[in-house]
Amino acid sequence: MATRWGICSAGKISHDFTVALKTLPAEDHQVVAVAARKLENAQEFANKHSISRVYSSYEELARDPDIDVVYVGVIHPYHLSACKLFTNAKKNVLCEKPLAMNAKEVKEILDSAKKNDVFLMEAVWTRFFPASVQIRNLLAQGEIGEVKMVRADFCVPLLHVPRSVQKDLGGGALLDLGIYCLQFISMVYNGEKPESIQASGICLETGVDESVAVILKYSKNRMATFTCSAGVQLPNDAIIAGTKGKIQVPSPMWCPTSLVVNEKETQYPVPEPHLPLNFTNSTGMCYEAEEVRQCLLKGLKESPVMPHADSLLLAEMEDEIRRQVGVVYSQDCQ
Amino acid sequence: MATRWGICSAGKISHDFTVALKTLPAEDHQVVAVAARKLENAQEFANKHSISRVYSSYEELARDPDIDVVYVGVIHPYHLSACKLFTNAKKNVLCEKPLAMNAKEVKEILDSAKKNDVFLMEAVWTRFFPASVQIRNLLAQGEIGEVKMVRADFCVPLLHVPRSVQKDLGGGALLDLGIYCLQFISMVYNGEKPESIQASGICLETGVDESVAVILKYSKNRMATFTCSAGVQLPNDAIIAGTKGKIQVPSPMWCPTSLVVNEKETQYPVPEPHLPLNFTNSTGMCYEAEEVRQCLLKGLKESPVMPHADSLLLAEMEDEIRRQVGVVYSQDCQ
Repeated sequence: MATRWGICSAGKISHDFTVALKTLPAEDHQVVAVAARKLENAQEFANKHSISRVYSSYEELARDPDIDVVYVGVIHPYHLSACKLFTNAKKNVLCEKPLAMNAKEVKEILDSAKKNDVFLMEAVWTRFFPASVQIRNLLAQGEIGEVKMVRADFCVPLLHVPRSVQKDLGGGALLDLGIYCLQFISMVYNGEKPESIQASGICLETGVDESVAVILKYSKNRMATFTCSAGVQLPNDAIIAGTKGKIQVPSPMWCPTSLVVNEKETQYPVPEPHLPLNFTNSTGMCYEAEEVRQCLLKGLKESPVMPHADSLLLAEMEDEIRRQVGVVYSQDCQ
Repeated sequence: MATRWGICSAGKISHDFTVALKTLPAEDHQVVAVAARKLENAQEFANKHSISRVYSSYEELARDPDIDVVYVGVIHPYHLSACKLFTNAKKNVLCEKPLAMNAKEVKEILDSAKKNDVFLMEAVWTRFFPASVQIRNLLAQGEIGEVKMVRADFCVPLLHVPRSVQKDLGGGALLDLGIYCLQFISMVYNGEKPESIQASGICLETGVDESVAVILKYSKNRMATFTCSAGVQLPNDAIIAGTKGKIQVPSPMWCPTSLVVNEKETQYPVPEPHLPLNFTNSTGMCYEAEEVRQCLLKGLKESPVMPHADSLLLAEMEDEIRRQVGVVYSQDCQ
C-alpha cells in the first residue's frame, strides 16, 4: 500500500520534494493533498503536481483522515507550530531542517510527537543519500582507520534572499547552511556530544549570522571544523581524515553525488527530475522519503539514521554556536 | 657579481636549498662555504655540491670574510643563537621558518639584525613563488572583489619524525605546518593584526601540538580559518573567497605550482632539480634566494614582501595560538 503524503506549504522546497517523490514507485508513494495559506498557491501547486485535494489552511490538512504523513516545508520559524498541529492531529511528520529555532522548541516538538505516538523526523536528507550510506559503511569497516579530523564547508552567496538574512524569517547562515556541516560531523562521530565548541562569526545588521566558523573537539583527541557563510562562495566539500586514509565528499557536500575514498572516486547520481527543480540535486530527497516509508512500515516512531537524539544534539550545538557568535532570535527570549 | 652564500647546517633543508640555488644563474648565486657541527657531514655536503670551503663550526663560517649572506637551515630551537652569531659577525641572514620559537626570540633576532645593520629575512619561501606573486596582483587589482574569507589547511602524518614531535627539537604542528597557513592568511590580509584569534588543538604526550584549528577575525567583517596537523593527511589546499569570486590554491598550498582563479587554472611549475630533493617542490626556494639577492643589491635590510613586521606578527599569533592550545616550550619560560 502506498504511503499517502500531505504537503504543508506550496513553496519552493515543497515543489522539489514532490518532484522527488515522483522518482519513486507510485505504488509506494502518493501525494494526496497540499495545503498553503493562500488557496491560489495551493491550487497552482496541485495543478502542477496533479494533486487531487487542496486546502487553504494547515488545519484542514491536519484534519484530513486520508494522510499517513505530512511533509512540513514551511520556513523554520513556523516549524514548531506546524509540527505540533500535525502531531496533535496524530499525523506522522517529516519536517524540514532545522527542526526548530532552538533546542527548547525542538524538545517541544519531540515531546509532542512522543505524546501523540507518531513518527517524526527532521528532514536531514543528506544522511540518506547513497554516498552517505557508503560513508557510514566505510567508517564501520575501519576503511580509513580511526577518524581524527573532519572538515566541512557550506558557503554560498544568499544575501539577496530575504529568508536568509531577515531575523523574523529565521535568517542566518548557521541554521540554513551550517546545519549541513554540523549534521555531517555529528554523523561521522556517531551522534557523540563534543567536549568543546568554539565558534566565531560575523553578523549582518539584521542581527543574524552572515558567516560562522566552528572548531569542535571530541573525546579521544578527535576534532572537526566547519565554516558556513551566506556572504561568499567556497568549494563546499567535506573531508574525513583517519589514521589510515581519507574520505572526501566533493561539492555539493550537502547533497553528494560522488565520494573519493583514498583518491578513488565513485559516482552516486540522484534520479532525474520530471520538472525543473529549485535547488541542487533535490530529487535526492527521495531517499529520506523512502526512509520515512520504511520506518512507518516497521511501526517506528523515529529513524535510527536520523533519530530524535540527533535532532536535539544539533539544536543544542546550534544554540551554543549562536550564543558565542551573538545571534538571538525572538524565540530564544520566550 | 654573484651573491656569495654560506650554508649553516648540512641537513635536509640545506641540501634542498643548495639544489635550488643551482637552478639560478651561476653568475648571480654562488655557494662558497658550508658549516656543520660534524666536519664529516660538512665535508660530505661539500663534496655533493662542489663547495670549496668546509667548516666544522658555525663560528668559523661567521668569521669567513668572503660571504655575503648565510642561509640558516638548523632546526628552529637553534635559530636564535645562529642568527645572532651571524648578524653580530655583520653577515646578512636568510633564516628558515619559523624565525624563532616565540615572539620574544624573534624580537631579539630582529634587534640584532638592526643593530648590526645587516639584511635579515625569515625564509617564508611560499611568498616568493610566481603563484603567490600572482595572488597579490589579483588581490590588488580587485579581481575577486573584497576578500571576506580565507581558508588553508596543512596536515601531513609526521608522528614518526622526531623533530616534529619532540618538544626540545621544537616539535609541534603549528610551527612546522600551521605557519604556512598563517603566513598565507597574513599575506592576503596585508600583514594586518587580527581582531581575534580562537584556537583549539590536541597535544601529544610530548607536550607539543599534534593538531590545531584556528579561527581569525579581521577588521571589516573579514575572517580566516586554518587547520594544521602532524597526525592526518588533508588535501592541503587554500582558498580566498571574495565578493566577486574566488582564488583557489590547490595542494601543495605551501609550495604552489598552480592557481585556480574563478574556476580557471594556470600552472606555475618550479625548476627541475639536478639532484634528488628531500621535500616537495624545494627548487621553489630559488625564488626567495633571488629575492635576497635583489634586496642586497638595493641595499635593503629587509624584504618588502616578507618584512620584519610580518615575522613578528606571525610569531605573536603563534604565541597566542599556543597559549590557547596549551603548548609551552622551554624558551617561553626564560
